[in-house]
Amino acid sequence: MPSIDVCFSPELLHLYDLKGKAVVAVDILRATSTMVTAFAHGAADIYPVMQLEECRTYAEKGCLTAAERDGVKAEGFDLGNSPFGYMSGNVQGRSIAITTTNGTRAIRLSEAAEEIVVGAFLNLQAVADHLSKLQLDVLVVCAGWKGKFNLEDTLFAGALVERLQDRFASENDATLASLYLYQTAKQDLPGFLRQSSHVRRLENLEINKDVEFCLQHDTFSVLPVWKQDRLINLQRELV
Amino acid sequence: MPSIDVCFSPELLHLYDLKGKAVVAVDILRATSTMVTAFAHGAADIYPVMQLEECRTYAEKGCLTAAERDGVKAEGFDLGNSPFGYMSGNVQGRSIAITTTNGTRAIRLSEAAEEIVVGAFLNLQAVADHLSKLQLDVLVVCAGWKGKFNLEDTLFAGALVERLQDRFASENDATLASLYLYQTAKQDLPGFLRQSSHVRRLENLEINKDVEFCLQHDTFSVLPVWKQDRLINLQRELV
Repeated sequence: MPSIDVCFSPELLHLYDLKGKAVVAVDILRATSTMVTAFAHGAADIYPVMQLEECRTYAEKGCLTAAERDGVKAEGFDLGNSPFGYMSGNVQGRSIAITTTNGTRAIRLSEAAEEIVVGAFLNLQAVADHLSKLQLDVLVVCAGWKGKFNLEDTLFAGALVERLQDRFASENDATLASLYLYQTAKQDLPGFLRQSSHVRRLENLEINKDVEFCLQHDTFSVLPVWKQDRLINLQRELV
Repeated sequence: MPSIDVCFSPELLHLYDLKGKAVVAVDILRATSTMVTAFAHGAADIYPVMQLEECRTYAEKGCLTAAERDGVKAEGFDLGNSPFGYMSGNVQGRSIAITTTNGTRAIRLSEAAEEIVVGAFLNLQAVADHLSKLQLDVLVVCAGWKGKFNLEDTLFAGALVERLQDRFASENDATLASLYLYQTAKQDLPGFLRQSSHVRRLENLEINKDVEFCLQHDTFSVLPVWKQDRLINLQRELV
């Protein structure tokens, strides 16, 4: 039986051997939720990049550019990090280059893995189904907040473990902790998270609407996976 | 109001500013539980050291030496890492040098803190009382397992947060997660932990008795604190 494990921060990634594994990169608030939303609204592909300057250069290649730092849209870019900015038909058929405080880092630091899938509550079942078929050992890589543990990514990990626990070994401590936290929180995820300082920080930025949206389960069936230098929507290729 | 935060691994310590803070170093299975037990049985002071070779040299200074690697006693040392090895009157009035896989590392890497307290379930209330008096911001530093998150240290952090939450701000994510996990687990800590791979690894080493012992709350009122190059029992000095 393959196993599922959880890494709570990119700062702990060096302790894990990614070779031959499937990584699920997650940054619920909001990078991976936004990427999933962009694909659901027709984005062709997404280039996650680490630096603002690098991201800017993608404009010359015809990409839309998206950038967030410390929770707010960076100046001089087409898009920010709110999923609601990607729903007006504006990303249909377009390539997007995106850089965020935490999420793009989690993806790029996982490149040694056999497969990288971008996960969010919004596409939870699509991710679970894909992993069940793959039958690789899974590592959920939480983006965290500037290297530190965060609750919302951990709750996503727990939700994924709950859906996979019959088919994956899940007895390591980070996996168990994620599962228990999710089972404690799932009746009221927004209420549970409202106690956390990061969510309150986001609410201060007047993006409660984003938080509620990003906590919805199974809204989209898109499946962003890493292909060489960018994310594509595997679901669209499978159809 | 001072704050309480939790660092899940020594590998994340560089993300925290220890200056002016009180660190509670914890390695429930078993380094800090064993240190607390040693002081409760009359140890004069304890030198936590990082390397086996360094630990060995303390024998020449008249110390008892104690060493554990990967859960078992290292060869050529007086003592291992089981609290039951320190209860026969053998440590009364003695200095002990100790090195363990995870616990001594958590202590030594926290030396920038204003104060380092060694915590375990066994001296939980003594630690809580001391921190309440100190009124410094608190960081619980979990030893983890070879850099990775572990459940038992996190549950200790949650237990400490529960006792301090009226007097300390505790809204960051690691603190909340610790508290929730403890509240889920506390009715049956041994049963809860029995699902974890590390505890099963220890049980395979036939130390169930150690696990049960280390999960007892408030057995001793000793208070090991870091003084220059070693741990002393502050409780004894206060009496």
